[in-house]
Amino acid sequence: MGIVMGPNQYGKAEVRLVAIDRSTARHGIKDLTVSTSLRGDLDEVHLTGDNGNVLPTDTQKNTVYAFAKEAPVGEIEDFALRLGRHFTRTAEGITGARVLVEEHAWQRIPVGGGEHDHAFSRAGDEKRTTAVTIDDGRAHVVSGLKDLVVLKSTGSEFWGYPKDRYTTLAETTDRILATAVTARWRYLGEDVDWGKSFESIRATMLEAFATTHSLALQQSLYEMGKAVLAAHEEVAEVRLSLPNKHHFLVDLEFCGLTNDNEVFFAADRPYGLIEGVVTRDDVEPQPRAWYSLPEF
Amino acid sequence: MGIVMGPNQYGKAEVRLVAIDRSTARHGIKDLTVSTSLRGDLDEVHLTGDNGNVLPTDTQKNTVYAFAKEAPVGEIEDFALRLGRHFTRTAEGITGARVLVEEHAWQRIPVGGGEHDHAFSRAGDEKRTTAVTIDDGRAHVVSGLKDLVVLKSTGSEFWGYPKDRYTTLAETTDRILATAVTARWRYLGEDVDWGKSFESIRATMLEAFATTHSLALQQSLYEMGKAVLAAHEEVAEVRLSLPNKHHFLVDLEFCGLTNDNEVFFAADRPYGLIEGVVTRDDVEPQPRAWYSLPEF
Amino acid sequence: MGIVMGPNQYGKAEVRLVAIDRSTARHGIKDLTVSTSLRGDLDEVHLTGDNGNVLPTDTQKNTVYAFAKEAPVGEIEDFALRLGRHFTRTAEGITGARVLVEEHAWQRIPVGGGEHDHAFSRAGDEKRTTAVTIDDGRAHVVSGLKDLVVLKSTGSEFWGYPKDRYTTLAETTDRILATAVTARWRYLGEDVDWGKSFESIRATMLEAFATTHSLALQQSLYEMGKAVLAAHEEVAEVRLSLPNKHHFLVDLEFCGLTNDNEVFFAADRPYGLIEGVVTRDDVEPQPRAWYSLPEF
Amino acid sequence: MGIVMGPNQYGKAEVRLVAIDRSTARHGIKDLTVSTSLRGDLDEVHLTGDNGNVLPTDTQKNTVYAFAKEAPVGEIEDFALRLGRHFTRTAEGITGARVLVEEHAWQRIPVGGGEHDHAFSRAGDEKRTTAVTIDDGRAHVVSGLKDLVVLKSTGSEFWGYPKDRYTTLAETTDRILATAVTARWRYLGEDVDWGKSFESIRATMLEAFATTHSLALQQSLYEMGKAVLAAHEEVAEVRLSLPNKHHFLVDLEFCGLTNDNEVFFAADRPYGLIEGVVTRDDVEPQPRAWYSLPEF
Repeated sequence: MGIVMGPNQYGKAEVRLVAIDRSTARHGIKDLTVSTSLRGDLDEVHLTGDNGNVLPTDTQKNTVYAFAKEAPVGEIEDFALRLGRHFTRTAEGITGARVLVEEHAWQRIPVGGGEHDHAFSRAGDEKRTTAVTIDDGRAHVVSGLKDLVVLKSTGSEFWGYPKDRYTTLAETTDRILATAVTARWRYLGEDVDWGKSFESIRATMLEAFATTHSLALQQSLYEMGKAVLAAHEEVAEVRLSLPNKHHFLVDLEFCGLTNDNEVFFAADRPYGLIEGVVTRDDVEPQPRAWYSLPEF
Repeated sequence: MGIVMGPNQYGKAEVRLVAIDRSTARHGIKDLTVSTSLRGDLDEVHLTGDNGNVLPTDTQKNTVYAFAKEAPVGEIEDFALRLGRHFTRTAEGITGARVLVEEHAWQRIPVGGGEHDHAFSRAGDEKRTTAVTIDDGRAHVVSGLKDLVVLKSTGSEFWGYPKDRYTTLAETTDRILATAVTARWRYLGEDVDWGKSFESIRATMLEAFATTHSLALQQSLYEMGKAVLAAHEEVAEVRLSLPNKHHFLVDLEFCGLTNDNEVFFAADRPYGLIEGVVTRDDVEPQPRAWYSLPEF
Repeated sequence: MGIVMGPNQYGKAEVRLVAIDRSTARHGIKDLTVSTSLRGDLDEVHLTGDNGNVLPTDTQKNTVYAFAKEAPVGEIEDFALRLGRHFTRTAEGITGARVLVEEHAWQRIPVGGGEHDHAFSRAGDEKRTTAVTIDDGRAHVVSGLKDLVVLKSTGSEFWGYPKDRYTTLAETTDRILATAVTARWRYLGEDVDWGKSFESIRATMLEAFATTHSLALQQSLYEMGKAVLAAHEEVAEVRLSLPNKHHFLVDLEFCGLTNDNEVFFAADRPYGLIEGVVTRDDVEPQPRAWYSLPEF
Repeated sequence: MGIVMGPNQYGKAEVRLVAIDRSTARHGIKDLTVSTSLRGDLDEVHLTGDNGNVLPTDTQKNTVYAFAKEAPVGEIEDFALRLGRHFTRTAEGITGARVLVEEHAWQRIPVGGGEHDHAFSRAGDEKRTTAVTIDDGRAHVVSGLKDLVVLKSTGSEFWGYPKDRYTTLAETTDRILATAVTARWRYLGEDVDWGKSFESIRATMLEAFATTHSLALQQSLYEMGKAVLAAHEEVAEVRLSLPNKHHFLVDLEFCGLTNDNEVFFAADRPYGLIEGVVTRDDVEPQPRAWYSLPEF
């Protein structure tokens, strides 16, 4: 028996890139956080410290910035694919790459009834994401969004669950349902209008969340995933991680008030956490596309 | 000589309140974080642990929730005034109160071309704030906003500064200027349409930031404050805290590329920090209105 | 073709439990954050909202608190095993459970040359962790630690790496090496003195980090994992996630000073990220033990 | 009437400095976060953007790093005094400076029964702090600590408080008392052994927290401040900000268990917040020493 090196990867995390498109007086802005990881023939660096196959993470960072200048950044999926393919083609012994991108949105500041040419304000905390994997020459694109916080003030029930000696929760036919959506969906190929597909998938998930009369957050999760797959044939599967952001009805009987689902305490911890995959039953699973992603 | 108790306050911090207006099928939502502090004749509790004048922070929390039911929450300034006056009238030995409120904004989820009645998504991380002080019967209202992140991709210069042996910064006539605005403004009275005033002040500051050709972030700060005072006679003074969120031009000469203010590294730390007060010269200062607020 | 529900889990995250052992006047304290997830026959709740198999996350939370009273909490591995087995035995249709525990350490406050009986101060931000999986009756124990921040002020080199047109990094034979260790190790069974094993593994990793003359952070990672496996036959494999917390030498030539590895800028982002598995070559892989853990 | 510029300051926040003492093979480490602010004749930069008096924040950052090389950093109070005096002497129109320093502690990694010469681990999240103000040639030193988390598992009561219609809290003669101490104390002069004074004040506060049988967190606050002043004639006043980190007894009657102050839920929000000043009655107040510090 012996001790050996197993799977591994290394890279540069959270490269903050802001690219300004100055091709016209009406500037554009792309604000990205990029993380790159390389995989391949890396036993030697672990066993002996031989860096012969180790493209430095500093060089990976430089490459991100240089690529943003060499061509327009464009959609984050295209940018990540360019970077991933470059790393696997250039570095000796590197056979795989994972490129994560988060995009931070900006909107133009309104001035005098119009929009300013070069002044922007941040459009919230929600991020559009992509996770591109290049694995022995094959590309996988898993895009998504995170920190999309949504709430229904009614239209949510929770009852019919098993009870045991530790049960105290009362059944309800009317509660607040709130969550912060983290979603990732795997594309079947690269022949996709990434920006248009993202906007449509996001709107579809929002609408499904809003219109589903929910008997369980799991049901909302499934309906959101199903709606995306029904409307987007370019998508193979959707993975959702939905914290149940509890809003507890405050009992105001102590001062003689009846609280008809009006006043709530929004709790931080603990929270429910509902995670699941909604998938087509006729697509080949691609575990390499999901390998080492931080969510379920 | 002796050891004595000096100024002090106590209260409940960060009470998370979500109030749903269910008076019609089209629900309304108010999402607030409320912090209360009481001041007064509190020497005994410090010196001997006698709680005779100490309205428990738990009771303060209950009061926040009960008040949200007893009458519509309304504008945060009115809600804070009601709470502050209540505490100073009710609790024995309490002569002052500070009520801080942060409001988190929501927008309706679009569904089928319209807006959903009871489904919402969070409208970013920016908060509307108020800090109401009741001090020996007098009320002070200091409202504001925080986490409003803005950026100009051009129209900002920085030169003409003193140089010494520690200077390395190059002068520039074109840089990115970015900041996260924290602003507080003091109202001269309470006869104000709080919501309308807030929206107008926010728009005024954004427009001033956008349209000021900036030679220094200090100049932008002053122009933002001045514009508010010029347009809003109900406001006595404006205090701004503006981190200079540095965007460093990436030097791409190493790979033969010229970077014409296109590709930037957005740095986290360190950051510049510009703080200042813009005020009318004919108003009486009100230090009690600002006492113990966390910003400059 | 059709749309179906794939893998999923649900549970209560971040239950904050503080248990005081008052069996003697010298109190003990256990401070844990517990997250539970259940898996099993959960298609119905997703497809129709039927909660017949859904033990509420609220009940899971209650169970954590009740178990802390029904018997002494003990080592976190034992506590998690008890909880995990309970959930898979009790709930209809639940065939798997994942219980995550983080332990926050406290130390006694020194008073008059001794230690106080019931007053404590928090011993840093480092956490001891465990991730116990019950999967169709079989238990897997993966314990670990996180947020152990370490630094070597010398004894670290980095050179011999490939160069390309995006390379700017200079080779060095003396740099600061710093990281925040997240480690998880899988135990081969349950017949382990968990506390003693943890303390020894932690000390072994620290010593390996300190004494390895490092040519690459990957080499330090491997030496840390190898040292654990060499000394602990109860451990099958070690997974490490090591951010390279860059400390950049500040160039002080601008003011005529030579900086001989003395003055550094500690950067936040971007950072290197080195992840890898060190394993025995004669143990059966157990992917279920690692399924859905947040790290590589 | 007119609009004018009021008080203001600007500087560089959160400069991360790690200084290694390599004078012997047994290295030393100083890990500081330094924030500098300058005050003075700064109307012009606000009104017109004229930077003639604006020593760039970039230069302030360079100065911090250069000073760490020009002489040993030493105690944070001495380092801050040197920086503050430098800025007010060097920059045209600068008459005041505020230098904030946070020190992050490290300990040596134990190896083979001894301590390693150049390998360290972070000693928790607690910080030693100083806030030095230079104001028209006069220096004020306000030192402190933050993030010192402490807990008593008994020896704390809360009763005898006023009740009103919003009261639900039950009186108790035995509860957990926990807080995260932020303390600042003002020194009367500079002829102080800063390190020794800090260690003694910290130990004194810890011991006072532990040994005070507490009827209110306010009483603990006062006893902590009083103990410092009684033992440290070099200190004029102590300011404490103490969040009451609530630990709620979990009601386990639902499953037939009696919880005798053993099992608690550690809550995040809301929390009590107790703030106060303990002072000598024969010292002159120095509001400039405290101006714009973030705490009460």
